[in-house]
Amino acid sequence: MTAGKLITLEGGEGAGKSTVLAAVRELLAARGIDALITREPGGTPAGEEIRRVLLDTAHHGLCAEAELLLMFASRAQLVRERVRPALAAGRWVLSDRFTDASFAYQGGGRGQPVERIAELERWAADGLQPDLTLLLDLPVAEGMRRANGRGAADRIELETADFFERVRVAYRQRAAADPARFRVIDSSRPLAVVLADVHHAVGGFLDAAGVRA
Amino acid sequence: MTAGKLITLEGGEGAGKSTVLAAVRELLAARGIDALITREPGGTPAGEEIRRVLLDTAHHGLCAEAELLLMFASRAQLVRERVRPALAAGRWVLSDRFTDASFAYQGGGRGQPVERIAELERWAADGLQPDLTLLLDLPVAEGMRRANGRGAADRIELETADFFERVRVAYRQRAAADPARFRVIDSSRPLAVVLADVHHAVGGFLDAAGVRA
Repeated sequence: MTAGKLITLEGGEGAGKSTVLAAVRELLAARGIDALITREPGGTPAGEEIRRVLLDTAHHGLCAEAELLLMFASRAQLVRERVRPALAAGRWVLSDRFTDASFAYQGGGRGQPVERIAELERWAADGLQPDLTLLLDLPVAEGMRRANGRGAADRIELETADFFERVRVAYRQRAAADPARFRVIDSSRPLAVVLADVHHAVGGFLDAAGVRA
Repeated sequence: MTAGKLITLEGGEGAGKSTVLAAVRELLAARGIDALITREPGGTPAGEEIRRVLLDTAHHGLCAEAELLLMFASRAQLVRERVRPALAAGRWVLSDRFTDASFAYQGGGRGQPVERIAELERWAADGLQPDLTLLLDLPVAEGMRRANGRGAADRIELETADFFERVRVAYRQRAAADPARFRVIDSSRPLAVVLADVHHAVGGFLDAAGVRA
């Protein structure tokens, strides 16, 4: 059996991940791929409880080290309980955020050392790398404006523009360092244009993977 | 101002940590020391939520990596939010378990590499080392017999005798490697004898630390 592929969506607040996730799911389904959909932090019963700890505004004093460890605790469980078994069984996996988010948020945003995160990626996330990553990129001010239109902000959404600026820079550096895996999509443009780009990126990946239309 | 001291209690199930904790607290109070009492996992609002995830029997499939990361997430927050500030302010801290428990349970019990735990100790626990550690040691069968007399077992208490045997071996190895910090107390003996040993160990430590009776 051929192993499945792991596709991840990354991006800051208000970048349109939910809309793009639904679009990617449809693109995969149109080629007969019933992807396992998951998210981070979360995606398992234990992970969803960890997510609540991470996003609860009551924990405004949560230190950067605890935040990083909780993110990787959720990820360690997700990889072993759901993602690795699915991939091994030939199923594709589509995840709303993955390890790149830790490099961006806990690394760029909180200043945790890159080597520390890379080491956790190696043993906690079992070294698992996505096959394709769509980075939805847009200016921080625009993302914050869009996110403000939603419900109550969680603990991380309450961060400053400076924080999200560092997150964006880290995301873009990750993408620039690995162009074979990343597709950077300018999501400041109208939705139809963004989705056309997503269609193109995912279609090209599927073609290259030998998945017939 | 003189920094406070950190005293930790370690030991397997049914070793009598609660009783000894109360006794140590009284011994300190008798010398005018109002120690901050804490426990692991837990000891902070976020840490207590992490504790619930760790001990919930619903998470019987929690992987060893996630367990280790959750223990250190709780510890990272405890050290920064409570222990370091207390010690810096000259206050003594008495903790029901600390990093030795990760070497014993996640290392010995679950087989997580010692170097991995030592690295987390360095950055997540900020390298903090107890000044005195009382290890309450007793045969596994006796500990399990005593623990069975309590309420419903948590996720870790449900482990096998083999698991607790490895925990005990790891604890004893830690103690043997650092006799200046550890006092191993045979808690299979009658309570009065155990408490006399505790009194002797803590009293000797206080005398050496220059705390007047």
